[in-house]
Amino acid sequence: MKRRISPLIIICILFTLNVRAEVSDSIQKIRNYRQANEQKIVKEFMELLAIPNVASDSANIRKNADFIAEMLKRRGVESRLLEFKDTPPAVYGELKSPTAAKTIGIYVHYDGQPVDVSQWKSEPWKPTLREGAVDSKSIDLNSASGSLNPEWRLYARSAGDDKAPISAITAALDAMKAAGVSPSVNVKFFFEGEEEAGSAHLPGLMQQYKDLLKADVWMLCDGPVHQSRKQQLFFGARGVMGVEMTVYGPTRALHSGHYGNWAPNPIALLANLLASMRDMEGKILIPNFYDSVRPLTDSERKAISEVPAPDQQMRGELGLAQTEDNNASMVERVVSIPALNIRGFQGGNVGEKAANAIPIEAKASIDFRLVPDEKPAKVREMTEQHIKNQGFHIVDKPPTPEERKQFAKIIYLQWDDGYPAARTSMDLPESQAVIHAIEKPLGFQLINMPSLGGSIPMYLFVDVLNTPVIGLPIANHDDNQHAANENLRLQNLWDGIEIYAALFTSLQL
Amino acid sequence: MKRRISPLIIICILFTLNVRAEVSDSIQKIRNYRQANEQKIVKEFMELLAIPNVASDSANIRKNADFIAEMLKRRGVESRLLEFKDTPPAVYGELKSPTAAKTIGIYVHYDGQPVDVSQWKSEPWKPTLREGAVDSKSIDLNSASGSLNPEWRLYARSAGDDKAPISAITAALDAMKAAGVSPSVNVKFFFEGEEEAGSAHLPGLMQQYKDLLKADVWMLCDGPVHQSRKQQLFFGARGVMGVEMTVYGPTRALHSGHYGNWAPNPIALLANLLASMRDMEGKILIPNFYDSVRPLTDSERKAISEVPAPDQQMRGELGLAQTEDNNASMVERVVSIPALNIRGFQGGNVGEKAANAIPIEAKASIDFRLVPDEKPAKVREMTEQHIKNQGFHIVDKPPTPEERKQFAKIIYLQWDDGYPAARTSMDLPESQAVIHAIEKPLGFQLINMPSLGGSIPMYLFVDVLNTPVIGLPIANHDDNQHAANENLRLQNLWDGIEIYAALFTSLQL
Repeated sequence: MKRRISPLIIICILFTLNVRAEVSDSIQKIRNYRQANEQKIVKEFMELLAIPNVASDSANIRKNADFIAEMLKRRGVESRLLEFKDTPPAVYGELKSPTAAKTIGIYVHYDGQPVDVSQWKSEPWKPTLREGAVDSKSIDLNSASGSLNPEWRLYARSAGDDKAPISAITAALDAMKAAGVSPSVNVKFFFEGEEEAGSAHLPGLMQQYKDLLKADVWMLCDGPVHQSRKQQLFFGARGVMGVEMTVYGPTRALHSGHYGNWAPNPIALLANLLASMRDMEGKILIPNFYDSVRPLTDSERKAISEVPAPDQQMRGELGLAQTEDNNASMVERVVSIPALNIRGFQGGNVGEKAANAIPIEAKASIDFRLVPDEKPAKVREMTEQHIKNQGFHIVDKPPTPEERKQFAKIIYLQWDDGYPAARTSMDLPESQAVIHAIEKPLGFQLINMPSLGGSIPMYLFVDVLNTPVIGLPIANHDDNQHAANENLRLQNLWDGIEIYAALFTSLQL
Repeated sequence: MKRRISPLIIICILFTLNVRAEVSDSIQKIRNYRQANEQKIVKEFMELLAIPNVASDSANIRKNADFIAEMLKRRGVESRLLEFKDTPPAVYGELKSPTAAKTIGIYVHYDGQPVDVSQWKSEPWKPTLREGAVDSKSIDLNSASGSLNPEWRLYARSAGDDKAPISAITAALDAMKAAGVSPSVNVKFFFEGEEEAGSAHLPGLMQQYKDLLKADVWMLCDGPVHQSRKQQLFFGARGVMGVEMTVYGPTRALHSGHYGNWAPNPIALLANLLASMRDMEGKILIPNFYDSVRPLTDSERKAISEVPAPDQQMRGELGLAQTEDNNASMVERVVSIPALNIRGFQGGNVGEKAANAIPIEAKASIDFRLVPDEKPAKVREMTEQHIKNQGFHIVDKPPTPEERKQFAKIIYLQWDDGYPAARTSMDLPESQAVIHAIEKPLGFQLINMPSLGGSIPMYLFVDVLNTPVIGLPIANHDDNQHAANENLRLQNLWDGIEIYAALFTSLQL
């Protein structure tokens, strides 16, 4: 049987050929250094990956911070730990340019998601090099001679998310030194230690070290490159907020024969409420919900049209005959409009466990994805107003017996605070400078995403530090981030080294 | 603190006084016998309750059948087991009247619901007499002298559902013999052994023994008396049918940020579908759903208006400020209109387990309660047509990858066959005769329910045996049927003895 070669693979091959052809002399020197030192680079990265890094594991998380601070110091970066309350310390470092007045900030996080060891092929903190997919042969790094196969992958928690940039940055600094090139800007490093635990202390920490963190532009280095494997920048991220909803029926489960048609069914109440909030095509029906949505700029529209559209491929891969709006691309949808996602609905039982009963309650869990300029407080207000308009009495704790007897329809809402979206204009001089600093020496065009569909607190850089922020990911898109068998493809690490070197040596702010 | 006496308790007291005052001489003799033999009656009942009676436990279920056949034989009833395939045997018996040409049939079931022993205060098949509620003191029957407190309760699986009638019938026969009164009709007993397992073989068994089961009226002896503790007859039951629904999203769970607004959310699809099928007030929105509903007769309307309305009390007890239609009583609603109950909805996760993901599927489980003259096949047809009209492609097994790529919205439906409602006219001579045979000697008015809200296959007596069928329950309404700590209040057993004696000795068909 012949296998068809996907158009995507062809694009990747063309792109790879292209990238290899046109790099600047400086970047060629960086590449030469890397090619001569691949084992050494991977070995140091494996040492970093071997330190368990769940934010709640205070002892180990501090070991990570110390280790990283040392890695920076070895490269001549003045580094120290920024302490804030009981939170994992942030690693801070400064690399001064002999000539420049401007400063770029580099944000990375060094903590990782908790692990379910039973799901991992090799242990999450025993970094393992493999020939490719998780079931491929493992490789002893010490016995690998010459250049490493760039399709090999390194398996470990945070290999992709988000220790990869740390390894790429330190290797880039080594390569710059070896190549005799100096930074064109001052560089500040700020590596957070509780991102995967929710960054609860990041606003306070940023506020406390506001002066230290002053920069002309911040790069948020996290996440994967485009699914087409092309390098990308992202200029924003959607905001997020969630709410848990509980709707009440009778205080005990009732026989659906004896009481059906009489006692209210909480599942039916909640299903109807949700249907009143969004339709089958994802349109949010809460009045005025789209009013404050910031329209796309011309640059953003152009950038979206230039992103390779994964729609067709992903529809096939995911078994979807149709998406919520077949007339708009995935990128356009996730960048420009807010989403109301129902992440869970639980009430009564289905299948073998289903009983002919009216259940006592039904629960739904929702996450909103916000776009600029929606404010979480306003979203909450509009949502609650809509729910009230459907006849519900809202409570902020489980209802008392008195409330149950007083109000026909009661809903208990538990909001999380959430945070707003951010979107840095691509037209800013800083944005253009960053794009050029990467594209010119590397000889390729970046994909410039006006925003991620996902949420990261980019707004903090804008709101607390008053600085434009741009996202720079280097991990492979299929790195199993947050899941078992997280991995980094070596070529993504090699590419990362060149991108950081380009940025540090070519950026003119 | 003073406790208010509920109006219901006052009704009960008045009723109790009333019942005690006006019974016929024959019934007074029956009562005298019972009062003199309470220990003996309860002791034999406890022996019956001590035999485990889950239908799938073949050895024990047959022990029950043998034991019951013996109980009947001891009372001069010709009895035998009716075998049908591998199903638990039915116990059949005939009591011939020396004078009558007409025959009444008595249906009871002797099997019980499965048990979760850990939830029981005392073991389900170690019958335990207690002073009242499940946490009250247990009583050694042998040390109880004189008459037993009628508020004592006997705890065991099937104490209420549905061995109570067997004990009441055999005690009534003993009492009739002691009182020297003969039956006014021939009586046929037909005790099923797999009702709680779904009566799958009952149609076949009835068909096979159709001639043997010929009678002029059948009494279906199951269920509880009215919540007011008044005795009642029910002339019908709602039909029932169920469907499990599964709606599909992407083939793997997707990040709600990266894919929210693009990939369809199966919970949202299903919530919208359910909302299109019924509204918050229980109105079924499937077109033509109410077209074949048989209107209530004048007698039925009158009977409904005479049923003590438990609405106000139950609203308080269940914490309901409002029911689906505050302008109609519970009885009117459950007797006269069909219900669409959502018994379960499951998709994704809520609360602590909620992940920001678009889940792969959502499931709902529905039960319909049907009224005459709705046909299950037609209900299925209308429901499927409605679902198609909402844009869904219906499959009868999980969809293939090809189907998923072809159809935008797919729903997998798993129907159970279900069965229709039945409602015997109260105006039939047989109905009137049964009412009078109980009311006259016992000196009280029955509550005559045109139908139960719940479902039992009364239609079989009508469809297979071509015989009117009337329901006669004796258990207390709070007997925990189907649940742990099932029990029978002794007064309900005493009342049952008198009712059966009245029926056997006074019925004139």
